[in-house]
Amino acid sequence: MPDLHLTSATNPRLKGLVGLRKRRTRETEGLTLVEGYDELGLALDAGVRPQTLYVCDELMLDAARQHDVIDAARTAGAEIVTVARQAFERVAYREGPDGFLAVVPGVNAHPRMLDLPTNPLLLVAEGVEKPGNLGAMLRTADAVGVDGVIAADPVTDWGNPNVVRGSKGTVFSVPVAAAPTSETLEWLRVNDIPLIATTPDTDVMHTDIDLSGPVAVAVGTEKYGLTDEMLDAATSRVRIPMVGQVNSLNVATSAAIVLYEAMRQRGVRG
Amino acid sequence: MPDLHLTSATNPRLKGLVGLRKRRTRETEGLTLVEGYDELGLALDAGVRPQTLYVCDELMLDAARQHDVIDAARTAGAEIVTVARQAFERVAYREGPDGFLAVVPGVNAHPRMLDLPTNPLLLVAEGVEKPGNLGAMLRTADAVGVDGVIAADPVTDWGNPNVVRGSKGTVFSVPVAAAPTSETLEWLRVNDIPLIATTPDTDVMHTDIDLSGPVAVAVGTEKYGLTDEMLDAATSRVRIPMVGQVNSLNVATSAAIVLYEAMRQRGVRG
Repeated sequence: MPDLHLTSATNPRLKGLVGLRKRRTRETEGLTLVEGYDELGLALDAGVRPQTLYVCDELMLDAARQHDVIDAARTAGAEIVTVARQAFERVAYREGPDGFLAVVPGVNAHPRMLDLPTNPLLLVAEGVEKPGNLGAMLRTADAVGVDGVIAADPVTDWGNPNVVRGSKGTVFSVPVAAAPTSETLEWLRVNDIPLIATTPDTDVMHTDIDLSGPVAVAVGTEKYGLTDEMLDAATSRVRIPMVGQVNSLNVATSAAIVLYEAMRQRGVRG
Repeated sequence: MPDLHLTSATNPRLKGLVGLRKRRTRETEGLTLVEGYDELGLALDAGVRPQTLYVCDELMLDAARQHDVIDAARTAGAEIVTVARQAFERVAYREGPDGFLAVVPGVNAHPRMLDLPTNPLLLVAEGVEKPGNLGAMLRTADAVGVDGVIAADPVTDWGNPNVVRGSKGTVFSVPVAAAPTSETLEWLRVNDIPLIATTPDTDVMHTDIDLSGPVAVAVGTEKYGLTDEMLDAATSRVRIPMVGQVNSLNVATSAAIVLYEAMRQRGVRG
């Protein structure tokens, strides 16, 4: 049994959901949205405790089977609200919603909240704006088993619904943090973690240096790369070799190439 | 001086441009569209000979400087057509057009048209649908210096304007081809090129095998991976290690990881 049933998209509760598409609202309220059965399942597995779960049976691919996530959300303390189809489609963020939309606590921790193992592998993304790129980096970070992804001087927040979606929900399983570049650098210094900056302006390749110890790999925006502040603070600068015409890679691709080289050097077999 | 000046979006020439957004029209006419100053410049550098170049000075970022591409297109044999702003904005494919739109020959060669060096490195993308992923793979293929990218059983054609855009124009500089999976496999056999299939269903990692000789790396769709036909024909099956929750990487990311490992093994410094 649901705790509540809503039929109109003009209901204030549902209008509030639409408000969470705005970064400022997400940050003020400390909340964000997770849409989709798979993504919500992953968030729940990662220990996320949804505040409210909005569901629409009619839109579910397999309502009988998928009620497991509703039960799990309820167990995690969520209020369950059923929503009529038309109203659900109005408040859903994605096209072709699958009947699951949850309000969950935001995910903008400071780096100092990260739980560091003895030999940490971190990713620092400075100024990256495109949610799709941030999401793709999180999927890679999940696959590599990165111990933390820090958004330095973030333009886009981790709670952005397109980041959540692009990450396939890994934004809830990968430890993420955000801070100004200056605080990120200070935190790395205090924790004695060497910073490896990726930049075209060096002869050292990413395969030339030792990535088997504690290390934070930094990538910058596609247009401008890393800031001077980040480059100047780096322990090493490395480039990814390129022999082509265009000489630039997608930023998420660059991150993956360096992180997988680190994984290879660390002998992680996964 | 332009060869022609058009002011109305209802002009049949301009309507024909909109028609080229359809795959069937592109394939029937053997033509595709390149939009954007940078992309067109790269296509021209790669030897592409545009049939027609549509330009709008008012929309250019820096018309004085950017006329170099108009001169180059004219030298390559293109007819130059100036278009009034409103009409140009109607026929442009992207939001915020920059005043350059060219009709160029299509790019759907058969693998047998590829010019193979003695030690080829190839990428085979089977059934990949998302233009953004195909474009990202081409950028990586360009960076790695891949000798050919073959779309096997293609769902999306190389001339798709979103592939052209996502590739940053590298679709014209990287040798691309397309063919059914069966013909692709037959061509690889005839040319004695080992096929390395990426799949989660093996214990062999991509870093475990020798990628320094002639090799074609195959990636499948994000949802279903490679077909049995491709897997059964493979010389080796490799997996990309993953230690996370989700256990799937973006297909363009997967391709980049294996191609960069090949580059490392080949000692290419770029």
